[in-house]
Amino acid sequence: MDAESTHSLSLARLGAEALGAAFLLATVIGSGIMGDELSGGNVAIALLANSLATGGILVVLIWMFGPISGAHFNPVVTLSFLLQKKISAGESLAFIIVQIIGGIAGVVMAHAMFGQDLFQASTTVRDSSHLIFAEVVATFGLVLVIMGCVRFREEAVGVAVGLYIMAAYWFTASTSFANPAVTIARTFSDTFAGIQFASIPWFIVAQIVGSVLATLVAVTLFKED
Amino acid sequence: MDAESTHSLSLARLGAEALGAAFLLATVIGSGIMGDELSGGNVAIALLANSLATGGILVVLIWMFGPISGAHFNPVVTLSFLLQKKISAGESLAFIIVQIIGGIAGVVMAHAMFGQDLFQASTTVRDSSHLIFAEVVATFGLVLVIMGCVRFREEAVGVAVGLYIMAAYWFTASTSFANPAVTIARTFSDTFAGIQFASIPWFIVAQIVGSVLATLVAVTLFKED
Amino acid sequence: MDAESTHSLSLARLGAEALGAAFLLATVIGSGIMGDELSGGNVAIALLANSLATGGILVVLIWMFGPISGAHFNPVVTLSFLLQKKISAGESLAFIIVQIIGGIAGVVMAHAMFGQDLFQASTTVRDSSHLIFAEVVATFGLVLVIMGCVRFREEAVGVAVGLYIMAAYWFTASTSFANPAVTIARTFSDTFAGIQFASIPWFIVAQIVGSVLATLVAVTLFKED
Amino acid sequence: MDAESTHSLSLARLGAEALGAAFLLATVIGSGIMGDELSGGNVAIALLANSLATGGILVVLIWMFGPISGAHFNPVVTLSFLLQKKISAGESLAFIIVQIIGGIAGVVMAHAMFGQDLFQASTTVRDSSHLIFAEVVATFGLVLVIMGCVRFREEAVGVAVGLYIMAAYWFTASTSFANPAVTIARTFSDTFAGIQFASIPWFIVAQIVGSVLATLVAVTLFKED
Repeated sequence: MDAESTHSLSLARLGAEALGAAFLLATVIGSGIMGDELSGGNVAIALLANSLATGGILVVLIWMFGPISGAHFNPVVTLSFLLQKKISAGESLAFIIVQIIGGIAGVVMAHAMFGQDLFQASTTVRDSSHLIFAEVVATFGLVLVIMGCVRFREEAVGVAVGLYIMAAYWFTASTSFANPAVTIARTFSDTFAGIQFASIPWFIVAQIVGSVLATLVAVTLFKED
Repeated sequence: MDAESTHSLSLARLGAEALGAAFLLATVIGSGIMGDELSGGNVAIALLANSLATGGILVVLIWMFGPISGAHFNPVVTLSFLLQKKISAGESLAFIIVQIIGGIAGVVMAHAMFGQDLFQASTTVRDSSHLIFAEVVATFGLVLVIMGCVRFREEAVGVAVGLYIMAAYWFTASTSFANPAVTIARTFSDTFAGIQFASIPWFIVAQIVGSVLATLVAVTLFKED
Repeated sequence: MDAESTHSLSLARLGAEALGAAFLLATVIGSGIMGDELSGGNVAIALLANSLATGGILVVLIWMFGPISGAHFNPVVTLSFLLQKKISAGESLAFIIVQIIGGIAGVVMAHAMFGQDLFQASTTVRDSSHLIFAEVVATFGLVLVIMGCVRFREEAVGVAVGLYIMAAYWFTASTSFANPAVTIARTFSDTFAGIQFASIPWFIVAQIVGSVLATLVAVTLFKED
Repeated sequence: MDAESTHSLSLARLGAEALGAAFLLATVIGSGIMGDELSGGNVAIALLANSLATGGILVVLIWMFGPISGAHFNPVVTLSFLLQKKISAGESLAFIIVQIIGGIAGVVMAHAMFGQDLFQASTTVRDSSHLIFAEVVATFGLVLVIMGCVRFREEAVGVAVGLYIMAAYWFTASTSFANPAVTIARTFSDTFAGIQFASIPWFIVAQIVGSVLATLVAVTLFKED
């Protein structure tokens, strides 16, 4: 998410993407478990906790890792930067791989913190067509926000992404996964924030569509004068 | 909301107003549906979600679209800038039209994401005289905040509007529509955040009164030395 | 809260203090009524709404009115600046008078928005000695925060005061009135945020003590090198 | 947390650490009591209040005391700066002592505000191995966030720590003590946020481990070019 995104491949950059994805997933899954356990079945309160915690940690992770790797943590954000030729194909592939591995590690870390089985298979079905459409909208908005802020207010990308995701938990019916690494990792948790493996192909297609559409719109809308 | 508001009419500016209004309404309606569905009838929790999501998305939308169109998304904000001669009458009219169209599109988008009928007619009556008064106060405050920040702290307009609306959901009895495009669009949704068509004329009159009053007060209070 | 606090007495400054106190009280009372009505007796949810709305509006009011009057809205903040010789005795008196009048006007405005009797007398007893002590702590912290930020990070005073008051709603047993104008105005509302008239003398004494103590500590701790 | 951390030992610096730790603990304990009392047994709502209040006050305390003492308030943060040779061993010891004393004073202050016995012994057992692991993760993240922001975005350390702790309340199973002074102080309160004395040795070991690990990782990851 900054000029350094074009730097050469480095271990520090891959480490930042992996650590960031791990903390992001640990937060999504962990705050989901905590909210679910404590709220006595009032799912809205659990989602409040989930959305505030995820939004908050995203701000911090982007501030901390943005100057190193660009703080993507998200294959379709990496895809958008690839389409904009701001990152090489080789590094994109490496980013996506460590984002997925880091995300799964974060899920395992959350399970360990809550004393649960480390590896689980989610049984939560999320496959209605309206949820797929919600993922297109959620990802479109996310990539548009990133590109708009990179263009006009680069120092604000962290807070913008955090606020957007906090809001998108609520206004998209899918609670806004908007990230294939997050989607894949969440199949490994049979908790509040899980999603069964069979549901994810369409989620990922929707996320790719949202990202590509947003990149096209943003290139026109936010073009340099 | 910035110096570029005086730029010439352009498609990018209209597109920014339409997209901004669409995402604003998708958030108002979508987070209302989600909060309502999940909170088990505890309306206060639904309104917490509604107010945090709307406040958060406003910050992001203003950061992203402010440098293009001024990020009004609101006919009575456009009216205030017209009274201040910071936008032409012709562009004001175009802005207001696309704000309304964008807002309705956002409502439809929210319905699509939640698997509901795309077009609905709200049956929620909101017509007590005290609610009308609340809309005058809500809009007065909104326009005052915008003009005060534009004068003294322009880079803070986005966060100021987001925080103000988050608070105004709670302190105005009407939950602070404060925006005729939002008001009209919300007639198309028979969900938590809806308002029946017959209730809106007085809401819109109140919003115009609040905006004009705030513009008069602000021109005096925030005048350049 | 800024260098302009030493400017000459002016109507704009008094208007800013009055308008700010009015919106502050409208928010305290209005969000209290709304939270109370909607939360079905779950007072914690009402206080969440109350604290988020009040914290949010304070940020906005300080950004908007700070450059005009210093954005005190609070007699014991004015007292602290008087002790620091940053405001004259005459203007301090005028500030305090308009803060109280503005605060009462805000309460009436909230009642009008919620369709209630405009003038009410609170019957809520708040007079335990531990609540009085809580007010000393609450006001001590508030004035310390203001003086610390004015010294080290002046542009952050608005957000600091908003966050402090949001937190202090929760960690002080009194929900942190910390402001004699707020205290007096809240006697006029027999709603969630009210306080009966007989309870307020000790609250105000506690607030004065907290402010004076904080001023003494801060003058030492935050002194210029 | 800033360049002044290397300054000579001074009373002002110790005072800032003590006052900061006192307000931090008053907030942790006080907001826990308030949330618990008002939420009618819905622990998730109490934790929402607890996490928002603690996160909010941390931002304010770091802004106010950071320029004086570095705003550690935390023995394992001081330890990390000692390992980085940014503070002397002698001052580190003094810092840790006043952090603990200040923290206990804050707990007593909270009890006084809520009309409770001033000194209590917590009976809340928190000793599962997964909670110990959670403390390693929580402290690792905290120190990483501090070092990352000190390196890349020093003015944002306050908000970063506040947001991180707000989120970590939810994603770590232990609610993220992440601070030996906080841990010790919380043994003195038999309320919502308490922890029994017998549980704390492993918590403190975990916090030391997390801090040392994070320091090692951060020195590599955030190294100057």
